[in-house]
Amino acid sequence: MQKIPVQDYTIYVGEMFSALNKYLLDHAARALVVLVDENTAEYCLPILQEQIERKDFLVIKIPAGELHKNIHTCQQIWQVMMDKGLNRNAICLNLGGGVIGDMGGFCASTYKRGIDFIQLPTTLLSQVDASIGGKLGIDFNQVKNSVGVFQNPKGVYIYPPFLKTLPKSEIRSGFAEIIKHSLINDLEQWQQIKKIKDIETIDWTDYLVPSLHIKKRIVEEDPFEKGLRKALNFGHTIGHAVESQYLESGHPLLHGEAVAVGMVCEAYISNKVSGLSQHDLEEISQFLIHIYGRYPLQKIDYPSMIQLMRKDKKNVKDEINFTLLSSPGKCLINQTCSLAFIEESLDYYRSIHTMVAK
Amino acid sequence: MQKIPVQDYTIYVGEMFSALNKYLLDHAARALVVLVDENTAEYCLPILQEQIERKDFLVIKIPAGELHKNIHTCQQIWQVMMDKGLNRNAICLNLGGGVIGDMGGFCASTYKRGIDFIQLPTTLLSQVDASIGGKLGIDFNQVKNSVGVFQNPKGVYIYPPFLKTLPKSEIRSGFAEIIKHSLINDLEQWQQIKKIKDIETIDWTDYLVPSLHIKKRIVEEDPFEKGLRKALNFGHTIGHAVESQYLESGHPLLHGEAVAVGMVCEAYISNKVSGLSQHDLEEISQFLIHIYGRYPLQKIDYPSMIQLMRKDKKNVKDEINFTLLSSPGKCLINQTCSLAFIEESLDYYRSIHTMVAK
Repeated sequence: MQKIPVQDYTIYVGEMFSALNKYLLDHAARALVVLVDENTAEYCLPILQEQIERKDFLVIKIPAGELHKNIHTCQQIWQVMMDKGLNRNAICLNLGGGVIGDMGGFCASTYKRGIDFIQLPTTLLSQVDASIGGKLGIDFNQVKNSVGVFQNPKGVYIYPPFLKTLPKSEIRSGFAEIIKHSLINDLEQWQQIKKIKDIETIDWTDYLVPSLHIKKRIVEEDPFEKGLRKALNFGHTIGHAVESQYLESGHPLLHGEAVAVGMVCEAYISNKVSGLSQHDLEEISQFLIHIYGRYPLQKIDYPSMIQLMRKDKKNVKDEINFTLLSSPGKCLINQTCSLAFIEESLDYYRSIHTMVAK
Repeated sequence: MQKIPVQDYTIYVGEMFSALNKYLLDHAARALVVLVDENTAEYCLPILQEQIERKDFLVIKIPAGELHKNIHTCQQIWQVMMDKGLNRNAICLNLGGGVIGDMGGFCASTYKRGIDFIQLPTTLLSQVDASIGGKLGIDFNQVKNSVGVFQNPKGVYIYPPFLKTLPKSEIRSGFAEIIKHSLINDLEQWQQIKKIKDIETIDWTDYLVPSLHIKKRIVEEDPFEKGLRKALNFGHTIGHAVESQYLESGHPLLHGEAVAVGMVCEAYISNKVSGLSQHDLEEISQFLIHIYGRYPLQKIDYPSMIQLMRKDKKNVKDEINFTLLSSPGKCLINQTCSLAFIEESLDYYRSIHTMVAK
């Protein structure tokens, strides 16, 4: 097991159940609630039930998926907590992916003005991304994470075998954040990553731990996203808009899949405005398309996506805010560009399949 | 103007508009939103509009009253903030009583994971109580303040002339917290207060500032209500239950009116379990009944009120938690008592009118 101390808590990676058991037994008098969704109830909860020594926990199960990451589901969670008489000493274990971690953390942080919570991320995305940073929240009014708080968990316990329960698309989705961390901050890791041909055979712990260290470094320098931390938004301005735009379509994208689209587009913009070379742009784009394929963005949706970008909480004044690359491993925050470049970047994305096919 | 520094912000009491103007002009580039309810829109907003130099603010108006302090109203507030494109740099001024301060602060603290807010309390209760402590939130599932966060404002600006816009019942309601502060922590102030015969002629600044100092002292020692701060809960275990019980009845009580009921009952329990003398109990009860009259509690409502007490977020394990007096000016936190004493205390309250009449 590896331990990564971050701010005021620790991330445990590997065979973490003995550490988790110690924590829970040290707090044996406090009520315990486990939040799961339909998927983690089926695939992960049985493992948790077998491994943790305390058996006196309440399970709250919610529907799976980003569509349910809303205030309505929060009300259901608060309601059960209240009906079961949970007091402020209770501890909430969030067993699931980003939706469970973000929403469960938000519900815990606001129930009776805040109870303690522990993250047990079960997807690659939540293991690499949501474990650090204290960002909690829900989607509101079609805008992702637009209601929430910053609050750290009491601990994060990452159990890599949970990844075996995931479909390939979920693994790919998490991989996008690992790619992003390397592109914004670690040229060497990018040079390793870009050689990957097939994600089926990877031992993710090898990529997870360095990626967590990159994020840790960034978040500790800027916990409230006043500056440096915006580096983590690379691919996310356009990525979030793409994700929101197609959330209720017949073919929603997973978060990382949308970020992969966003990274291609924002690499294009980086080439136009922040000095990313044509060669690096092509290498990044082709790698991402190789791993993720090309999502059928529709030209007719551009205005609506640009509208979504305008509502992005990272914006300052009325300008759409980007984090762009100057070269692989280096980024610039608080960049802006013309609307024309944004539209061109979407056109570029749509054209790549042809380029790759050549 | 008096300045009371508290934790990381300052409370300004008196002619505070020049200080407020300075702050707002120092942050002139940031969007400004003013949250009001129907009452403060009519009585206080015109004064604010006349006095503040920045005129470029958005007004969000919500219905008045505790009944609207819920997640539904929060959704309306978040929605307007989002529709108007407010970004994370925006500043929210909460112009109103406790509902506006608690709910506006909660909405600000969660909108895009938190924007800055300033409290402009317009009622005596919110001036003395909600200005310090960072407690924000809404009622949920009939339980007061059961969803919320701890977050400090950037500043509190108290303008005593706002009190002239209030009905007498609102003044009385705020006075209850001033009485409470004296009973738990300041014998001398209690000795002054108990001589008051008529609240119509009082200069509230004389009572407000010492009361703020008592609360400041307590909150600074225990910001997250782990211990000492529970002193402030005197009168509130039973008071909250009474307030919730009759919230949707034909005759709801204002918060302070309910706390006055709670203080009589909890003084009775203090006499039974924590050493408050019979003489002091009678003096406290008679003073409170003189100021507040006697609310027609119904015996049939006892079980439901006790059920509400069981859901109180201050409880530890399954026991109903009280702060009780050992003598005027001194209190003990984390007290418990038998259900019989709770019921007796309600009977005692219901019997007092007769005693006073004797």
